[in-house]
Amino acid sequence: MIVVIKDDATEAQIDGFIRNLEDRGVFAKAIKGESKTVFGLVGDVSSLSPEGLARNEFIDKVMKVSEPYKLSSRSFHPDDTVIDLPGGKKIGGGNFAVMAGPCSVESEEQILSIATDVKRSGATMLRGGAFKPRSSPYSFQGLGLDGLDLLKIARQKTGLGIVTEIMSTDYIDVFEKEVDVIQVGARNMQNFTLLKEVGRLGKPVLLKRGPSSTIEELLMAADYVLVGGKAQVILCERGIRTFETATRNTLDLSAVPVLKKRTHLPVVVDPSHGTGYWNLVYPMALAATAAGADGLIIEVHNQPAQALCDGQQSITPQLFDDLMKSLGKIREAISTIEYTL
Amino acid sequence: MIVVIKDDATEAQIDGFIRNLEDRGVFAKAIKGESKTVFGLVGDVSSLSPEGLARNEFIDKVMKVSEPYKLSSRSFHPDDTVIDLPGGKKIGGGNFAVMAGPCSVESEEQILSIATDVKRSGATMLRGGAFKPRSSPYSFQGLGLDGLDLLKIARQKTGLGIVTEIMSTDYIDVFEKEVDVIQVGARNMQNFTLLKEVGRLGKPVLLKRGPSSTIEELLMAADYVLVGGKAQVILCERGIRTFETATRNTLDLSAVPVLKKRTHLPVVVDPSHGTGYWNLVYPMALAATAAGADGLIIEVHNQPAQALCDGQQSITPQLFDDLMKSLGKIREAISTIEYTL
Amino acid sequence: MIVVIKDDATEAQIDGFIRNLEDRGVFAKAIKGESKTVFGLVGDVSSLSPEGLARNEFIDKVMKVSEPYKLSSRSFHPDDTVIDLPGGKKIGGGNFAVMAGPCSVESEEQILSIATDVKRSGATMLRGGAFKPRSSPYSFQGLGLDGLDLLKIARQKTGLGIVTEIMSTDYIDVFEKEVDVIQVGARNMQNFTLLKEVGRLGKPVLLKRGPSSTIEELLMAADYVLVGGKAQVILCERGIRTFETATRNTLDLSAVPVLKKRTHLPVVVDPSHGTGYWNLVYPMALAATAAGADGLIIEVHNQPAQALCDGQQSITPQLFDDLMKSLGKIREAISTIEYTL
Amino acid sequence: MIVVIKDDATEAQIDGFIRNLEDRGVFAKAIKGESKTVFGLVGDVSSLSPEGLARNEFIDKVMKVSEPYKLSSRSFHPDDTVIDLPGGKKIGGGNFAVMAGPCSVESEEQILSIATDVKRSGATMLRGGAFKPRSSPYSFQGLGLDGLDLLKIARQKTGLGIVTEIMSTDYIDVFEKEVDVIQVGARNMQNFTLLKEVGRLGKPVLLKRGPSSTIEELLMAADYVLVGGKAQVILCERGIRTFETATRNTLDLSAVPVLKKRTHLPVVVDPSHGTGYWNLVYPMALAATAAGADGLIIEVHNQPAQALCDGQQSITPQLFDDLMKSLGKIREAISTIEYTL
Repeated sequence: MIVVIKDDATEAQIDGFIRNLEDRGVFAKAIKGESKTVFGLVGDVSSLSPEGLARNEFIDKVMKVSEPYKLSSRSFHPDDTVIDLPGGKKIGGGNFAVMAGPCSVESEEQILSIATDVKRSGATMLRGGAFKPRSSPYSFQGLGLDGLDLLKIARQKTGLGIVTEIMSTDYIDVFEKEVDVIQVGARNMQNFTLLKEVGRLGKPVLLKRGPSSTIEELLMAADYVLVGGKAQVILCERGIRTFETATRNTLDLSAVPVLKKRTHLPVVVDPSHGTGYWNLVYPMALAATAAGADGLIIEVHNQPAQALCDGQQSITPQLFDDLMKSLGKIREAISTIEYTL
Repeated sequence: MIVVIKDDATEAQIDGFIRNLEDRGVFAKAIKGESKTVFGLVGDVSSLSPEGLARNEFIDKVMKVSEPYKLSSRSFHPDDTVIDLPGGKKIGGGNFAVMAGPCSVESEEQILSIATDVKRSGATMLRGGAFKPRSSPYSFQGLGLDGLDLLKIARQKTGLGIVTEIMSTDYIDVFEKEVDVIQVGARNMQNFTLLKEVGRLGKPVLLKRGPSSTIEELLMAADYVLVGGKAQVILCERGIRTFETATRNTLDLSAVPVLKKRTHLPVVVDPSHGTGYWNLVYPMALAATAAGADGLIIEVHNQPAQALCDGQQSITPQLFDDLMKSLGKIREAISTIEYTL
Repeated sequence: MIVVIKDDATEAQIDGFIRNLEDRGVFAKAIKGESKTVFGLVGDVSSLSPEGLARNEFIDKVMKVSEPYKLSSRSFHPDDTVIDLPGGKKIGGGNFAVMAGPCSVESEEQILSIATDVKRSGATMLRGGAFKPRSSPYSFQGLGLDGLDLLKIARQKTGLGIVTEIMSTDYIDVFEKEVDVIQVGARNMQNFTLLKEVGRLGKPVLLKRGPSSTIEELLMAADYVLVGGKAQVILCERGIRTFETATRNTLDLSAVPVLKKRTHLPVVVDPSHGTGYWNLVYPMALAATAAGADGLIIEVHNQPAQALCDGQQSITPQLFDDLMKSLGKIREAISTIEYTL
Repeated sequence: MIVVIKDDATEAQIDGFIRNLEDRGVFAKAIKGESKTVFGLVGDVSSLSPEGLARNEFIDKVMKVSEPYKLSSRSFHPDDTVIDLPGGKKIGGGNFAVMAGPCSVESEEQILSIATDVKRSGATMLRGGAFKPRSSPYSFQGLGLDGLDLLKIARQKTGLGIVTEIMSTDYIDVFEKEVDVIQVGARNMQNFTLLKEVGRLGKPVLLKRGPSSTIEELLMAADYVLVGGKAQVILCERGIRTFETATRNTLDLSAVPVLKKRTHLPVVVDPSHGTGYWNLVYPMALAATAAGADGLIIEVHNQPAQALCDGQQSITPQLFDDLMKSLGKIREAISTIEYTL
């Protein structure tokens, strides 16, 4: 930690500050510049709160030197984490996974039809919402446990593993038993109670970045899951909130290489929520793949105009099939390209 | 709902669209301009999804005419809601309330000392965190139920009602029994499971705006609480996330008059989180009051530089006492001023 | 234009409103819904100010139906604009162009060395700043006209056309005479005086999106250039300002397909300013290409650590050479992929 | 400047780095922590580019210790700058100024009527646009020099000084001769050519914050004006661009105390552009005053619904008169309140 001292600090203030730190096992090493004095704090700084330090009147500012996340950091775990998915599939470390399916499970016919189609096109897993977080209490809230049952039927028929969102710790046992990859949605990225609970299960967790969360906060949220010791985490970039209204969110594709450099965890991109419009899903799926993502999560609906949610950003099974072929071409090109982050 | 048709839409598409709507009890009335055709949809549009409609290829865009929130809307409930607080205090409808106390409860000495001080200065309620949502799992997470016990002791000694944050539905019974105003924090503003649960209790809920939530989304979140039928809601502006780094958040004070116009619910402002720096709390508390807020929630700590959290944005009891006097002067000036929103 | 009337508007107000419009040649066609009355305005609405209309007390809101840009719109000019560049090169309509070079021209040795290198690697044009817009008046401001002279020498030696930024109408004649593509920088995207002036020259203009400008505003700015009647415009996405601090800006790659759909103008991406870090330039250049960009503008410096500006985001000629080969592979893959926007 | 070294840096890299700095008269003093080594750079660091340093592979990050602005800094000039305005008025150092008038000058009747009204209500100066920066080239662009002539007539009749926006260096002589306070608009805050030119005139400059500019950038822009040596600067907060759509911009009132602490320059607030809605102007004018602003700039129009621009955010002369009385009450309350920033 670096502490910048104000120009008008007295010697008494500084001496008291240094002694106070020494009592806590922290040593302040001074660097005197022409206009500013700066201290580097060495020792066990874990007990220090930068905000508390900054509250001292003679301190100008406090700057952190180290990353605030640990278990998710590549400096803690240099190699890519590779996560096993159902059906012998993997994600991470060069393994690319596509999760596809409707925003929400609506009926057996719907989910079976879509699951069969995306399986045929080469999807790795089936996505589909049973519990739906909707901004309005008057919108369709999902089929709940009935939706989960329909996903299980679809899994049985197609062999695709299922990824679906958990909204409450109330259903933690059901999700542990029935779901292959547990999704924590963007709005719950900092629902720390939920993060800790899913971290106690032995299941991969798909953690979506909150629409106003920094990359650093996403990695701290991943740490909340990882401290549980049993779960693995897949990170998901799904767009951040900005002033631009031409898209539902601003898909932050630079987050992909930034994350790949900082963390060993697999990174997937959601171009459906990231853009909000079906016709932007295709080019942004290609772009995400070229940017180095480990996978994609894409909303596919057989009748988007009738979808109970997110129809505007869902592509048809036909377009998904075409997209999968195109993704293959980009993946092939990318496979011959190497660069250092 | 207004539907704008694309220039190259065919008559067959439009006819099909109209008939399809009529089957659902919705009538499309056309307005033909020189370059664009527009339909106004009349009838029971509640079953229509604007996003689904927009998915039709011949539709350019869909615009909503009505507000998406109901129970919190002033058109639903024209008069200000006035909420009873402990000790015969009120908030809303001209009643101003100040909630003050530390970011987190740290010890009996600490909370009793602060509670006694803020009570003497005229605070309406005592705030203090028992369960703390922290971005990092390695930061102090609050004393939990022990913290709640200390708050109860402080309430007993001072007579101040207590407001504290709920982070999980697991503690819903304890909060119902022990807490006077239940706070739902900014990170949980769209934790819909939690919103529904607290809405079933007969307690006032202090609902903080999420750092990237629009005012419209805040009101929809309030509706999630209000549909429970028993709770009352106090809204809290606490800063939104922007590119500016000179403050922790950007305190959106315009949200105060916007909310006062749109909703009957009381609106309080949190200048501590809203700015992140203790020396900005004072002027922004004055400004929030002048903007028409129904109250304030302010972090006060007797030893801010040693605080286990948020020391940088906490003011001392001495400064709080001075601030309360100044707020009185602004309140007095404001009491003679009238304007229409 | 759509006008939504407030619930409590009187008949007299509405009648007066309709008559007033009729006097101006505009006809208001009513659609009465259950809770709201809406008017569609037909006729010559160009004289109406939506903001002025909204000022009427009985009007709830005014919604625009048409796009506010014209000359840059694809509905005005359905085919891709193809722009001729020096050396028989083109951009747009399937022609891909890479503009490469240093942030600022520093010396003859520097610019010649870099120009020779990027030419050999296949760059289409040489970029380099002579006049530099710097946030601080104490930073290096560019070599000015001397820098322009050095660019001309580099053009003569390599045959590469030059693109450089104009900061003031004072130099309009020099730029007309000497520069191949005139860049209007992000900070000047709404310097309307400058836009009008460059629009009177018969030169292609590279118009960079302002860091807080919407796509719609970018297209209106393009219209400012195009109304001059002589210039052609290349649009450039170079990152927008958001709360994320891991990158200098947030590169909004979704803007590429959004722009390709809305406008006939070529769209290039600047991954150097868009990310701010040299190691992110490579993956984001690949991603931009996969997203459908018509070209790239990339900062290349032979000694980035000694660069007088933007060293942190500049790549070396060696890395640029490798990147050009990789871009070729992505271009090849993309050439076989077709999708509808 | 603080340089954080990567964990895997070699001794050779570090030695080379230190020697290289010493050649430039800069000394690197090391602080070795348990996990990180940090250098504080002492000496003449003005020739160093932090971005360039950060480009070295063995460097993790570079952190600046000093503020990047100088002439506008309070550490450079501790006392408040007080600026003389026409008619013996002042702004700064406890002097409060209200600039009022229409968005744009439309006719002699209009500007005379409004000027007379705002003068009577106590306005300090008359604002009014002659040259108008409009997002669309198809919108009314102002009366230009004719508008300036009308402002002069209004000045002569009312005695109010005039503040109006300069959009181009072409008119620098006219503005020097005719205008009392020269406004540089938000879109031109980083039009550095213009800033330098107006800084050469002996006139006060009203510098508006760009909608996506940080406070630090605003102060650097002020330095661009101040290095000219003759002009004085009044800073203006007028709202920043965020995701919130309920207001035209998000008025960042915290910027007022932040600026008052960092700079000696007067700070005014524009609640008209800052909110975009006439009914929000009143409460936000009160709030800005309570936050410690040195003045306000407010759009007033005698027929807002017919205004050629910005009618939606203009208040009537009647409302302005009422507001001035209310501002007096807040000013009176504030005059008895003291706090430390």
